[in-house]
Amino acid sequence: MLKRILTGDRPTGQLHIGHYFGALTDRVALQDKFETYVLIADVQALTDNFNHPEIVRQNVLEVALDNLAVGIDPTKSTFAIQSLIPEIAELTVFYSNLVTISRLQQNPTVKSEIKEKQLLFKNSVTYGFLGYPVSQAADITIFEADLVPVGADQLPQLEQTREIVRKFNQIYGLILKEPQARLSNFPRIKGLDGNKKMSKSLANAIYLADNPKVIQEKVMSAVTDPAKVRLRDKGRPEVCTAYDYHKMFSGDELRTITQECRAGNRGCVFCKEQLSQNINTKLAPIREKRQSFASQPKTVKEMLLSGTAKARSVAQKTMLRVKESMLLVYP
Amino acid sequence: MLKRILTGDRPTGQLHIGHYFGALTDRVALQDKFETYVLIADVQALTDNFNHPEIVRQNVLEVALDNLAVGIDPTKSTFAIQSLIPEIAELTVFYSNLVTISRLQQNPTVKSEIKEKQLLFKNSVTYGFLGYPVSQAADITIFEADLVPVGADQLPQLEQTREIVRKFNQIYGLILKEPQARLSNFPRIKGLDGNKKMSKSLANAIYLADNPKVIQEKVMSAVTDPAKVRLRDKGRPEVCTAYDYHKMFSGDELRTITQECRAGNRGCVFCKEQLSQNINTKLAPIREKRQSFASQPKTVKEMLLSGTAKARSVAQKTMLRVKESMLLVYP
Repeated sequence: MLKRILTGDRPTGQLHIGHYFGALTDRVALQDKFETYVLIADVQALTDNFNHPEIVRQNVLEVALDNLAVGIDPTKSTFAIQSLIPEIAELTVFYSNLVTISRLQQNPTVKSEIKEKQLLFKNSVTYGFLGYPVSQAADITIFEADLVPVGADQLPQLEQTREIVRKFNQIYGLILKEPQARLSNFPRIKGLDGNKKMSKSLANAIYLADNPKVIQEKVMSAVTDPAKVRLRDKGRPEVCTAYDYHKMFSGDELRTITQECRAGNRGCVFCKEQLSQNINTKLAPIREKRQSFASQPKTVKEMLLSGTAKARSVAQKTMLRVKESMLLVYP
Repeated sequence: MLKRILTGDRPTGQLHIGHYFGALTDRVALQDKFETYVLIADVQALTDNFNHPEIVRQNVLEVALDNLAVGIDPTKSTFAIQSLIPEIAELTVFYSNLVTISRLQQNPTVKSEIKEKQLLFKNSVTYGFLGYPVSQAADITIFEADLVPVGADQLPQLEQTREIVRKFNQIYGLILKEPQARLSNFPRIKGLDGNKKMSKSLANAIYLADNPKVIQEKVMSAVTDPAKVRLRDKGRPEVCTAYDYHKMFSGDELRTITQECRAGNRGCVFCKEQLSQNINTKLAPIREKRQSFASQPKTVKEMLLSGTAKARSVAQKTMLRVKESMLLVYP
């Protein structure tokens, strides 16, 4: 039997090239080796978008289209919409008794994410946001995932899940599967503004769905070496965001680009035009596939709902065993 | 249309005479004037009994029997088992985003209850226990309760629910009903040990199901005026726990009892024998009715399940409107 992977996305915006190199290409490769569940985590997205349910709703479809566009194949992978699987909320409530407030407050991932959301949470974080590692534990374990692909910064999250599993099994019997991390060491892609993180909220992202004109405009705005003003100035590729993208998109041309930049034989405008062409060459087939799925919304919705139904039946089986072990099955 | 009341019990032990005068007699009277839902809150009971699911499970039936014994009529009131209504957990998760950690930590009821559970929670309270006002808000509002009978010490809890309702309605539209408190001013019955609270965890309670012999033994152990040692010593009824119970159980005899005690014309053993007889006279018909229901466990279970089914359909209707307002209905 194939091992099972749980992965997924928060539907808070379209996916961008940071997601592409960070998670999606890996996800596409994994679906051939593992039974893959792709959770579209709309309930979790509400923890920091509770004021904007329309953003979450709209992006459930967008995120599904992005996944399909990069090659997630619904005959191999199972898509599931979180809010349609209420058993996850039940399990979250049960897990709430197995983790302390101070443990959650010490979780480094939670700490840094609360810091990032300072504008939203001001002086005090919501109960729901502090508890999102608890609901993530429910996501992972309700599907009996063996593996969860994570970046190094998310390891503390998975450790939280594993702690909850051990505590649960110790009290109620050997019911839950303890998941393992599948550590991904992808280079993190910088934002167009040079920020070390590309993200929707920083408005510094190139989306998979961006058209050639938008790609070109965005690339032209990318931060370059501030010391390189004129054509003949020698550039420092290591401080140039455009160069960061060349590394991902320009393949064999990279050596020449590096040499010319350092030698002062390459202007930034020319360099960015070349980059935007290369990005477009890479994204064009993805964009085309995305448009083709987007033109069949009914088919995509049916695919999401049938995936969710399959996933829910897995979740229900887990919950039956959970409830039996907690003496909550009547009569 | 009748207004709706939500009330209920945590199934952590049998109900005692403190519950009887504190909530149950009122509850019996209310069922004729209001549409009454009696929630047996097993999920909430697990917040401080997660280590002992067997206690919770066993007491679901006990608590139902106690309610039936005092006169809750299943043709008038609707019993509901919380864990069989998973929509409550879903609503709890949604409400989690509308309340902050510091707001919960400042709730006076929560504060004092955490203090009481120090032995269980040691240095840090669990995420689930801190959040029980959130799940209580879900209990109350999912049934669209107009009124919630509460003691003065529980008013901050209900205020928390009302805050969540207002916040929800402000974001998602006028969906939820804001419940009102129905303040009960019952005298709180002391424990047998003189503690101001009668409770199972303090092992100082007389249960509705106690037989005459147990009642007598417990009454004999009740703390009296420490200054009254011999028969002829003058007693101070106001510091005597047995006297506290006489006030509830001895009706017209109370005046004589008071006078004799103050005058030193009444020995404590005689006084307690009289009390235990009076308690037994009051509890005998309740006990009899309880035994009669206990001998028909199948009927009681069916009654619990059919009540739960009715309650769940109310909960599902509320949740449909909640999810529509949060844009979580697919497709």
